[in-house]
Amino acid sequence: MKRTITHLADGRELVYFDRHDDADRSAIDRRDLPPRPAASELRYDPLTEEWVAVAGHRQGRTFLPPASECPLCPSTPGHPTEIPSASYDVVVFENRFPSFSAQPGPHRDIGGMSEARPGIGRCEVVCFTSDHDSSFSRLSPGRIDLVMEAWIDRTAELSAIPGVEQVFCFENRGAEIGITLAHPHGQIYAYPYVTPRTRLSLGAAERHRERTGGNLFADVLAAEREAEVRVVAANEHWTAFVPAAARWPVEVHLYPHRRVPDLGGLNEAERSAFGPLYTEVLRRLDGLFGMPMPYVAAWHQAPVNVGRELSYAHLELFSIRRAPNKLKYLAGSESAMGAFVNDVLPEEAALLLRSTVTE
Amino acid sequence: MKRTITHLADGRELVYFDRHDDADRSAIDRRDLPPRPAASELRYDPLTEEWVAVAGHRQGRTFLPPASECPLCPSTPGHPTEIPSASYDVVVFENRFPSFSAQPGPHRDIGGMSEARPGIGRCEVVCFTSDHDSSFSRLSPGRIDLVMEAWIDRTAELSAIPGVEQVFCFENRGAEIGITLAHPHGQIYAYPYVTPRTRLSLGAAERHRERTGGNLFADVLAAEREAEVRVVAANEHWTAFVPAAARWPVEVHLYPHRRVPDLGGLNEAERSAFGPLYTEVLRRLDGLFGMPMPYVAAWHQAPVNVGRELSYAHLELFSIRRAPNKLKYLAGSESAMGAFVNDVLPEEAALLLRSTVTE
Repeated sequence: MKRTITHLADGRELVYFDRHDDADRSAIDRRDLPPRPAASELRYDPLTEEWVAVAGHRQGRTFLPPASECPLCPSTPGHPTEIPSASYDVVVFENRFPSFSAQPGPHRDIGGMSEARPGIGRCEVVCFTSDHDSSFSRLSPGRIDLVMEAWIDRTAELSAIPGVEQVFCFENRGAEIGITLAHPHGQIYAYPYVTPRTRLSLGAAERHRERTGGNLFADVLAAEREAEVRVVAANEHWTAFVPAAARWPVEVHLYPHRRVPDLGGLNEAERSAFGPLYTEVLRRLDGLFGMPMPYVAAWHQAPVNVGRELSYAHLELFSIRRAPNKLKYLAGSESAMGAFVNDVLPEEAALLLRSTVTE
Repeated sequence: MKRTITHLADGRELVYFDRHDDADRSAIDRRDLPPRPAASELRYDPLTEEWVAVAGHRQGRTFLPPASECPLCPSTPGHPTEIPSASYDVVVFENRFPSFSAQPGPHRDIGGMSEARPGIGRCEVVCFTSDHDSSFSRLSPGRIDLVMEAWIDRTAELSAIPGVEQVFCFENRGAEIGITLAHPHGQIYAYPYVTPRTRLSLGAAERHRERTGGNLFADVLAAEREAEVRVVAANEHWTAFVPAAARWPVEVHLYPHRRVPDLGGLNEAERSAFGPLYTEVLRRLDGLFGMPMPYVAAWHQAPVNVGRELSYAHLELFSIRRAPNKLKYLAGSESAMGAFVNDVLPEEAALLLRSTVTE
């Protein structure tokens, strides 16, 4: 494995992750790019005690360009892209339209009762493959190892940025989920705060430990392995199951059998065992309705500074598709009150996924 | 005002709210309807300490029928609908595909660490007008008074059902929000638990009171009226403003100037002053991009049994439309981590809404 750090024309960092040590990564980005935008603004919502990022500059971001203008494909002589090289294995670079970045914007007095501060942090794009028409489910085991290397490397690097409190690796897939680029890629957000969901889960994990002495996530995993009825797939090191209180019509959580706070804690055997199980689950998702399943795949890792001993790295995968021609919308109950209504029984979803014939 | 309680063929309650006391509501529902489904199941998510409703029977619900088959229009000789009468002003009835209902389903042992209990509660539909092609923004002041009567009546009635902890009146508007029926209507959910969002805000309000002695919502309203920059419209009894930490590209909160826990607490002058201001705000929303704005309009009212002295009834209105051809999607950061990124500055949104020319 070879890691090469380079920079794009506007100063953004780009990192190649190559399987072979002889990869030539000397290509230079000669595009004439505008200066990078200042960081977004963080605003504190007193009604929920949560931070909201306001990023006015992102309205103009690239939106579903034709494949011939894809900014995530390797550069060709007539078409320079975000990746200067003519080929790549896995590449990570700073997002051109970031929700969080290193450059603070001007301080603004916004009045009212809301506090504001710069949205310091970082947003990166992870290209899983140079093949525009591929998908994560079709990556080779070796390629997935490399993607994992990239996630682990970026989690460590971004965690070291002053002010960063949590690093979140995720993939949005499908136009239904709102992706703006079709090329197989994920994203990494380095937040300057612990996210609301993580705060909620760490609070629950702390109360669970006080009450039972156990780790909440480990105990949920053990109970699901024991109950069996919602398990979708498993191997020696990982189990994939539909959570008993699933919020989404299609939802699968993947846990390593051994608790680690983040991906960097996985040993080699655990890392290698992830790809085969995960791609099997993804193929079952695609097979469920006989069409590519739109999804969000979210790596829950420990925050940088708090709750590390309570955290249990795992992947939460979910989709808004509830039938071949129907989507689950977050309307009044979910969006306004946080009260989810799921139209699919988790046990039935698990049964359907288990019995789906994969390619 | 006249209130007439009747029942549909399958036993569901239907209540007419009429402006004139001589309205004839003797029409009988003669349809042959299937039995009503059992209540959904509530499942406790140990990772978030929240309840999720699982309602398998709702998958088959009516989905955007043509106007000639609208179940919310008055009945005609050849086309019996949910409303037996040949006309109506405002009518409320129990949802045929409810997320919560009075009939408990069979007890099921679901295994795992999740607790399950019946989703006891009630879901109602509120038809604002018999005119299929109208919208809330075009209702007359008298009609809005009647809708408010219905909200207040139903909040009181549903709060009295054993097990109901919170009553939520809301409107989803627009196919982009996922509405399944185009006829102008809202919904009422009577939940058997305090919703996550309300729990969060009551916690914040309690901490605010301990810290400052003041009411959180009243202090936010006062600060926004003072700051002025995010105020969209106001009259003697109500103020509409974009919250400083808005999560959505278009978001407006409407507060009465006097704190009341729920709509039933409003006096006559406050009730009458709501309609004109709200419809002005709705017309500004429609004018913003020159097209009907999809939205969620959510009445936040005090729960039935807790936090009533902290609550402040208000309406939160928001849209996922961020440009004429673009929607805000809840992707990885929002859906998986609860971390919102808003691409529109609240002050700019307020300025745009103030300067929008309305019909």
